[in-house]
Amino acid sequence: MTSHKTYMHRVFELARLGTPSPNPYVGCVIVKDGCVIGEGFHHRVGEAHAEIEALRDCELKGNNPTGATLYVNLEPCSHHGRTPPCVDALIKAGILRVVISTTDPNPLVNGQGIEKLRSCGIEVIVGVLEDEGKELNKHFLTFITQKRPFVYLKAALTLDGKIACSNYDSKWISGDESRMLVHELRSKVDAVLVGKNTIVHDNPQLNARLDTVSYPVRIVLDSNNSLRVDSLRDDFVVFHEEGETLVLTTMTKEGTKNNKIGKNKIENNKIENNKIVCKADEKGRVNLHDALSKLAARGITSLLIEGGSSVFSSFIQERLVDELWLFIAPTLLGDENAIPLLKGFSPTSIKEGVQLRFTSFEKRGEDIFVKAVLV
Amino acid sequence: MTSHKTYMHRVFELARLGTPSPNPYVGCVIVKDGCVIGEGFHHRVGEAHAEIEALRDCELKGNNPTGATLYVNLEPCSHHGRTPPCVDALIKAGILRVVISTTDPNPLVNGQGIEKLRSCGIEVIVGVLEDEGKELNKHFLTFITQKRPFVYLKAALTLDGKIACSNYDSKWISGDESRMLVHELRSKVDAVLVGKNTIVHDNPQLNARLDTVSYPVRIVLDSNNSLRVDSLRDDFVVFHEEGETLVLTTMTKEGTKNNKIGKNKIENNKIENNKIVCKADEKGRVNLHDALSKLAARGITSLLIEGGSSVFSSFIQERLVDELWLFIAPTLLGDENAIPLLKGFSPTSIKEGVQLRFTSFEKRGEDIFVKAVLV
Repeated sequence: MTSHKTYMHRVFELARLGTPSPNPYVGCVIVKDGCVIGEGFHHRVGEAHAEIEALRDCELKGNNPTGATLYVNLEPCSHHGRTPPCVDALIKAGILRVVISTTDPNPLVNGQGIEKLRSCGIEVIVGVLEDEGKELNKHFLTFITQKRPFVYLKAALTLDGKIACSNYDSKWISGDESRMLVHELRSKVDAVLVGKNTIVHDNPQLNARLDTVSYPVRIVLDSNNSLRVDSLRDDFVVFHEEGETLVLTTMTKEGTKNNKIGKNKIENNKIENNKIVCKADEKGRVNLHDALSKLAARGITSLLIEGGSSVFSSFIQERLVDELWLFIAPTLLGDENAIPLLKGFSPTSIKEGVQLRFTSFEKRGEDIFVKAVLV
Repeated sequence: MTSHKTYMHRVFELARLGTPSPNPYVGCVIVKDGCVIGEGFHHRVGEAHAEIEALRDCELKGNNPTGATLYVNLEPCSHHGRTPPCVDALIKAGILRVVISTTDPNPLVNGQGIEKLRSCGIEVIVGVLEDEGKELNKHFLTFITQKRPFVYLKAALTLDGKIACSNYDSKWISGDESRMLVHELRSKVDAVLVGKNTIVHDNPQLNARLDTVSYPVRIVLDSNNSLRVDSLRDDFVVFHEEGETLVLTTMTKEGTKNNKIGKNKIENNKIENNKIVCKADEKGRVNLHDALSKLAARGITSLLIEGGSSVFSSFIQERLVDELWLFIAPTLLGDENAIPLLKGFSPTSIKEGVQLRFTSFEKRGEDIFVKAVLV
């Protein structure tokens, strides 16, 4: 007999075919008499949920789902959202058993879907491959429970912890294989964020260049909004390529002044239009908690922080990093003429340093690729 | 039929049972009619070579080696050293075939052993598991060919490349499992070297604390010989524990002056007796090439550099490191209040940085243990 886990693996596989952000990844498999009679996944926001897709698939194939077991990675919804509640459709179809990987922490669902199924006599099994289910929807789960995007911090660094020479040369610390992985990650997140200095010194494209090119939202952290004038220059790629570029800034004194001086010039500027004014922290910089909350309000469920040092340090110090992706290159740059991964920490003992846990590591070309989380 | 490689693995296993420094690790297996009829290894300097041990083992067991195949990892010697030439004994014993992993680059042997065997009609096969054979005797091979010890650089560093807080707190960057490996390495090298500052700030024991405690030679790099007076203090462990402690210094102006002032006090001091006066480099520091050559002259074939930053940097810049052992801890210390792995490099581009190659990496407890070589 094929196990629940086997079907759930297929559910995950189907789920990953969608591009549902800000909705979760959901796949569904319907099984009767040991045969898969229908499959589906949630394609994109506004379209049918995976369960409905799978029921439709049964119908198309002339299969009757009555008495079947339905596998789905996320608890079926019980509320009227953009689409009607899935649990009603399951009950109507005569599904006998529902196997779920993770519950849906969305306050509109949050166990109520399971409750309704059970109250109708449907057997519900919860928690099959739960860790994988959570990993699959980590963006969505963070977005729903913490009301901010899931935050990745990606850096290519030398073995002695440097991200560039002090003349900002950083091409290329990491090798081809590592950079390929960065493009894959960019293709899977809603947005990519860099600091103003990275724009000025590196002028990056911040798109995902794989077989096809995709464009996450580009976000520039520019507390004093000082790039606004510069950005009129044609050489900052992010402001001119396909897709959206947002500037996170704060209303400091300088910002207000610049605003007045440059008013006419800037009014019709794309960046001015796409400026997000955030609360300031005690140093007059963008309050990152506020910034992430404002990005979440725009439906951004995942964010990739790409540098530089000051931006990395701010996010780490605010503990607003969910996963670090670090590419350690077999290079040593020393300390006199190089830019460190982090600035502005002053621990007086090892114990006071930021403690991480390595969650995985592997060789990528000549580099070592390490994933880590804050502990 | 058992292959050459299988017997050679056994040869390596036997070889490792010895503690032969400054001689090489050598093991020997004698095989006749598919049976091992004798085994041996070189125990320690001055004692019988592995081939002789294996022939004696045949004799003890009443086995006749005539017509047998002899496996040995290093080319048999052809010269009269502390013991008579092994090739003569092999010829006399009627060995028919000799299988060797690596030739002996010692100018007194260097192919002459093989030549003599062949001239006597003995079949000689060379190069079986040659890479492993070279790895086994990397200390000896470096010692013989470069006339200096094989140099390891060991450091425990944070993910952002720091080896301590600026108050010199470094306890403990790495975890228990990593430190255990350091003690294993210390037990396998002839000597351990640190800079003067490490003695002053860490007061390390520099011994190998495994099931039993062993004592490699401790070497302190102290260009200005400034520790001499301090060392009269009782609290520097290395000067008082079992075994030998050497101080590498140079005859700078300050050194000469100190010498005069402290003469009476220092005359009977252990450190003064164990001082090795080296050539100075252009900055008045110990010339490391000269220092290593002087250590080799004392029979030190392997040296473990344990810090700190300045010492690491000097050895790296002189390209006098054969293998880096780095324990990367899941900690971030930032840049304001921490001591970097390396100081005094000023590359102006990534390409000008010191390029390494990772040769292995693995998880050790919470740390990542990386081996690397200079390229």
